[in-house]
Amino acid sequence: MIEDKNQSKTDLGQLGEFGLIDHLTKHFEIKNKSSITGIGDDAAVLDFDKKQVVVSTDMLVEGVHFDLAYMPLKHLGYKAVMVNLSDIYAMNAKATQITVSLAVSNRFPLEALEALYAGIETAAKIYNVDVIGGDTTSSTTGLILSVTAIGEVDSKDVVYRKGAKPNDLIVVTGDLGGAYMGLQVLEREKEVFKVNPQSQPDLEPYTYIIERQLKPEARKDVIELFKSLDVKPTSMIDLSDGLSSETMHLCKQSNVGCELYENKIPLDPQVISTCEEFDIDSTTIALNGGEDYELLFTIDQGDYPKIKGNPNFTVVGFIKEKEAGMQLITRGGTSIELKAQGWNSF
Amino acid sequence: MIEDKNQSKTDLGQLGEFGLIDHLTKHFEIKNKSSITGIGDDAAVLDFDKKQVVVSTDMLVEGVHFDLAYMPLKHLGYKAVMVNLSDIYAMNAKATQITVSLAVSNRFPLEALEALYAGIETAAKIYNVDVIGGDTTSSTTGLILSVTAIGEVDSKDVVYRKGAKPNDLIVVTGDLGGAYMGLQVLEREKEVFKVNPQSQPDLEPYTYIIERQLKPEARKDVIELFKSLDVKPTSMIDLSDGLSSETMHLCKQSNVGCELYENKIPLDPQVISTCEEFDIDSTTIALNGGEDYELLFTIDQGDYPKIKGNPNFTVVGFIKEKEAGMQLITRGGTSIELKAQGWNSF
Repeated sequence: MIEDKNQSKTDLGQLGEFGLIDHLTKHFEIKNKSSITGIGDDAAVLDFDKKQVVVSTDMLVEGVHFDLAYMPLKHLGYKAVMVNLSDIYAMNAKATQITVSLAVSNRFPLEALEALYAGIETAAKIYNVDVIGGDTTSSTTGLILSVTAIGEVDSKDVVYRKGAKPNDLIVVTGDLGGAYMGLQVLEREKEVFKVNPQSQPDLEPYTYIIERQLKPEARKDVIELFKSLDVKPTSMIDLSDGLSSETMHLCKQSNVGCELYENKIPLDPQVISTCEEFDIDSTTIALNGGEDYELLFTIDQGDYPKIKGNPNFTVVGFIKEKEAGMQLITRGGTSIELKAQGWNSF
Repeated sequence: MIEDKNQSKTDLGQLGEFGLIDHLTKHFEIKNKSSITGIGDDAAVLDFDKKQVVVSTDMLVEGVHFDLAYMPLKHLGYKAVMVNLSDIYAMNAKATQITVSLAVSNRFPLEALEALYAGIETAAKIYNVDVIGGDTTSSTTGLILSVTAIGEVDSKDVVYRKGAKPNDLIVVTGDLGGAYMGLQVLEREKEVFKVNPQSQPDLEPYTYIIERQLKPEARKDVIELFKSLDVKPTSMIDLSDGLSSETMHLCKQSNVGCELYENKIPLDPQVISTCEEFDIDSTTIALNGGEDYELLFTIDQGDYPKIKGNPNFTVVGFIKEKEAGMQLITRGGTSIELKAQGWNSF
């Protein structure tokens, strides 16, 4: 669909492994004060002074997490960084460095990897993180990306999943379900394209949700906003899976229960209209669709005035005592137990 | 060959992704002072106080870096950790944490991953590193392991590749070429086994070199030895590729030349006898065979008395001015330019 068939092709074997790493990473600059040295030695050297360090890692596998039929490689590189930075922000930390490891089959020409790295570089620039290491190797089949993200945070500012207390407000950033519905549209167009390669899909009505799928943004801005609003969440997690399973993670690790309100879940109009078109319930999508990379957090009710009216935040429920269980209160007022139907790659 | 065909098999899909991570990592304890929290949140939290932090990452791909026909999964887990710790020690740092990401096809039963993680856990225990994060996902084909290792070091103690000066001594730890020759023996036995599955190979004459291939040890002890001997190398790199290409890395990054002496290269008698059996030149193997995970470093000549006579160390040459080039002086006294024939997975 999006692939350019007329691109020039350079065989990876021509460069060799060292040549390839050099070639792909030579543009990368080191900007963070904590990055002493980056790529080019046995290990990168970092100095966080008195800050604490947060580390997270994620692996993306072709055919499991992405489909190159509709995921341009530049977007894939960008998204692989976002997925990892999102975990750093979910600790209320500042993302500072990433390492990127790559296994690729030699069906990929050099130009494909250049596109992938262009996406990584763009993400690193915009989010002000340094690419400080990585490994590039061949794979017997597809493309596998493994990113490790590192961040820094004052020890007093770290937010874990486990700090939610009864009566805390449950808040989400942005809106939910877009990435999942974007994927549904892309999957549908892929099937249409298979039958008729000449078809020109009209994706105009889906631009927002397709962008949510192909080029998600991690919520660096929200972490900065917390600082300027003087808010420290009591617990936080990023929404890589659906609202339901992530809320359950927070509650289980905090040893509390909760009530989520169906009518409070923030949905973009495009999500609603696309759900109608696909005849899917939009609440189900928001609860169980993944990859929105928004933040889900809890705050003390005393902090509510600080976030009230802020368009980035939507209060979707309350933390309850553990005995109350984890409930969704439907528009009709019925209480339904939350279920985790999050992502399972197996 | 080594695989046990009678093992019980539990399908990965039964556990799901969260269940799998929990199951595989529940035994892992956090021991290092710098590990504040490990697995179980969006990211691990670390605190290195005033130390600098070193980070390295490596990816191992089935069919490229290892062959499960003769690499038991427990050994693979152990080796994957070693490969990464070796990079940390090559910075003269103490390894403190690792993250482990895994992509596996569902042809692997749970018991296979348990064996893999048992190897990871054994390595982590012996080397006193904490497993603080990771990701487990499915793959469309084989097994891919991505490990990121983290270490700590006083800023004054960091050793880079770039510090070698003319007249410095070039030193290697242990002996070279064993891992490569062990691989040759295993490859040969695999071919024999294909032809005659009833054959019982006599691997007794090759125990040392097979162990070098299947269960290498990173040189944590050498870093501790440097401290007790009060030696700080001027440059250092680990021998993941052969002596030739690693020496060239040191020289290029230090902007110097060198002379290596063929007759000084440390070889185990099993390497010599196996090379004779395979009719391969043992110097070629030491220069170009990889995966020994020994350390190659340079020291100021003034430090020579501190390492003299220590069985861990062998002086193999001298650093020269850049103009002298990078030379191997053969047993016959001939000077041959070093060539990098290191590992290239493409």
